[in-house]
Amino acid sequence: MERFYRRRIEQVRRRLAGAGADALLLTHLTNILYLCGFSGSAGALLVEPSCVSLFTDGRYILQSREEATGVRVRISRGPLLGAVGQHLRKMGRARVAYEPSRLSVAQKSELGRAAGRKIRWVGLANVVEDLRAVKDAEEIARIGEAGRLASEVFAEILPLVKPGMRELELAAEVEYRMRRKGAAGAAFETIVASGARAALPHARPTEKRLGKNELVVLDLGAILAHYCCDLTRTVYVGRAPARVRRWYEAVCQAQVAAREALRVGVAAGTVDAAARRALKGFRLEHRFVHSTGHGLGLEVHEEPRLARGQTRLVQAGNVVTLEPGVYVEGVGGIRIEDDVVVLADRTEVLTSAPREFLEL
Amino acid sequence: MERFYRRRIEQVRRRLAGAGADALLLTHLTNILYLCGFSGSAGALLVEPSCVSLFTDGRYILQSREEATGVRVRISRGPLLGAVGQHLRKMGRARVAYEPSRLSVAQKSELGRAAGRKIRWVGLANVVEDLRAVKDAEEIARIGEAGRLASEVFAEILPLVKPGMRELELAAEVEYRMRRKGAAGAAFETIVASGARAALPHARPTEKRLGKNELVVLDLGAILAHYCCDLTRTVYVGRAPARVRRWYEAVCQAQVAAREALRVGVAAGTVDAAARRALKGFRLEHRFVHSTGHGLGLEVHEEPRLARGQTRLVQAGNVVTLEPGVYVEGVGGIRIEDDVVVLADRTEVLTSAPREFLEL
Repeated sequence: MERFYRRRIEQVRRRLAGAGADALLLTHLTNILYLCGFSGSAGALLVEPSCVSLFTDGRYILQSREEATGVRVRISRGPLLGAVGQHLRKMGRARVAYEPSRLSVAQKSELGRAAGRKIRWVGLANVVEDLRAVKDAEEIARIGEAGRLASEVFAEILPLVKPGMRELELAAEVEYRMRRKGAAGAAFETIVASGARAALPHARPTEKRLGKNELVVLDLGAILAHYCCDLTRTVYVGRAPARVRRWYEAVCQAQVAAREALRVGVAAGTVDAAARRALKGFRLEHRFVHSTGHGLGLEVHEEPRLARGQTRLVQAGNVVTLEPGVYVEGVGGIRIEDDVVVLADRTEVLTSAPREFLEL
Repeated sequence: MERFYRRRIEQVRRRLAGAGADALLLTHLTNILYLCGFSGSAGALLVEPSCVSLFTDGRYILQSREEATGVRVRISRGPLLGAVGQHLRKMGRARVAYEPSRLSVAQKSELGRAAGRKIRWVGLANVVEDLRAVKDAEEIARIGEAGRLASEVFAEILPLVKPGMRELELAAEVEYRMRRKGAAGAAFETIVASGARAALPHARPTEKRLGKNELVVLDLGAILAHYCCDLTRTVYVGRAPARVRRWYEAVCQAQVAAREALRVGVAAGTVDAAARRALKGFRLEHRFVHSTGHGLGLEVHEEPRLARGQTRLVQAGNVVTLEPGVYVEGVGGIRIEDDVVVLADRTEVLTSAPREFLEL
C-alpha cells in the first residue's frame, strides 16, 4: 500500500477512535478511491482498527487486486451491502460509523437488516471529505496538470470560435483535445453557450451556430489521473458594445476581489462576499445568480464552498474555483473562472488561459 | 406542458392515491427530467393532487422556465431541501411520500427538521423507475437513434484499430465522433481495453498501445436527446488462435440464447440463466463474471436487471442490453453487447454494428 494511502487511513482511524466507533463503513466511491486507490464503480470500504476490507463484485476481481494493494478484497456475488452486513454481523456487539450523506435511506435499511440488531449505527459526516479538502503537494500538482491541459485546450480551440460554428461541434473539439492530451474525460458536460443562451449559467451546448456580435461562454474541465480542473472563459464574436465591456470589467474585478479575500483562516463566505461587493460597485450584484466558487479535486464540487454565509474556514491546501459571473436575460452572460490553490502565505492560480477580453 | 409529461404525472398521482399519501417528493434528477423535462443539476419535484412544484436554485431561473412548462417553479436561495421542508410545513398535517433510494440519510434528516412534526413520511420505492422501465414509442425511437449513432461510430473507428494506436486515443476518437454526430456526450467512460487488459470488464483506457495478436474490447455509449445506448464489440488485431475463436463463438451463442429467452412475461433472471447455460456448453460459465444485461433509457443502468435470480417480469416496452462475456486473466476478454427492445410479440435489436468475428 502506498505511503499516502496509509497516512489517510491512519487519519480516518483517529477520527474513528475519537467518535468511539469500532469501524467506519465508507460507501462513497470517491472516498474509497482516496483511501485505497480502487477506482471501480461498485464498492464499500470497511475501516477497522487493524484491517481494511474492500467489498466489490465479480467485475472487479482483477482490478481491485491491481489497484487496492494492502487492502483485504472481498468479492460478493449477491448485493454488496448484504455482504457488508453479514460481515458486520460476525463482529457481535459493535458501534459502526457510516456516511449519512452517502447512504440512502433504503441502503441504510438493507444494511441494518443484514447486520442485525447487535450493531449500533453512528452517523459520522464528512470524515473523508474533510481530509480531501486539504490537498497534499502531489494532489495540487495533479490538479495543476489538469489545469494546464485545459488551458492549452482553450488556446487551441480559440481559432474555431467564429460565426457559423455550432455549439455542439465546439464542445466536441474541446473534449476531443482533452482526451488526446491524456484526460480520462470531461469533468462535467462542457458548456458552450452563445448569444442569449450565455445567460443560462449551466446551458447545454446545442445545434445553435455562433452568430456575429455574440458573447460565448466556454466552461470546460478535464479529469487527469483522477483529478479535475474547471476553467471558464467568455469571449465576444465581433466588436463588443460598451456595456458588454463594462460587464466584463466588472466580472474581472469581482474575481480579483475574491482572490484577494481568499487566504488561510477567513470564512469561505467572505470570499463570496468580496466578489459580490465588487459587482455592487457596478450595480450588477443582482445579475450574479450563483456562488463564487467551490473546492475541487477528485470531484469537481468539493469543500469548501465559497457561497453566501459559509462559515467554514479556508485552509492551506484548499483548491477552489473563483468564478463570478453576470447574466442578462435575452442578451447573454459572462463568467470567468480559474482554479486557485491556497498556500500558507499566498495563493497560486493553476489555470493560465488569458483573462483579458477577447474580441474575435 | 407536453402531453406525455401530463400522462406520466397522472400515473404518479394514481400511485400516490393508492399509497394514501398527500404528496410525493422526488429528489432523483432523472426522475424529475422524466416527469417534467427539467434537466438542471439541482432540483426537487413535489407532486400534489392538484399541482406540481419544481424547487431549484438561481442558476436555473431561465432554464427551468424554458424546460418545465406547466410546473410551478420555486427558486430557493438557501439549501434546496430546506425550502422544500418549509413549503411542506405549510401543508399542516399530511402524509408525504419520498424515494427512499434517492434520499440520503442526511437529506432525510434535514428535510424532516425543516418540515416539522406534522408531516408523516412514507417511503415509496421505484414509483418513477417502474414507469421508466416501460418505454413509449417516442422513447424507443430515441434510444434507437442513439444506437444507430453508436453503430456508425463503431464502423468509422474500425480502420483506426491497429497496432501502435493508444487505447486513450481510440477512446478520444470514439467520443469525438459521437459528439460530432450530435451526442450530448458519452453515456459512460468509453472502454478500450486491449491484450491482457481486456480481461478487466470495466477497464479504463490507458496509454497502452494496441499490439499485434491482441483482443480489443470497445464498449461505447452515446447520450442523444437525453437517452442512452450501450454497445460493445470485440475484435482481434491479427489472426486469432483457435481458442480465441471458440471463446468468441461461445459469447455469440450466449447472446443469441439470451435474446431467444427474452420475451414478455418471463422473469428477468431466466434471460441471464439462458446466457449462462449457453456458456456452460463451452465450459466457460465460470469466465462470465457479470450479469447478462440491464435496462437503459435516460440512464445507462435501469430496470430490469438481467441478473441471476431476478424475479421481475419482462414487460413490453423494456429496452435492455444483452452483453455476455468471457474473461481470461492474463490473456484477454470478449464481450458482445447490443440493445434490444421487447415488443408484445417479438424483440428488435437497436444496435447494428457487425457481430461476426473481425480480425484486423
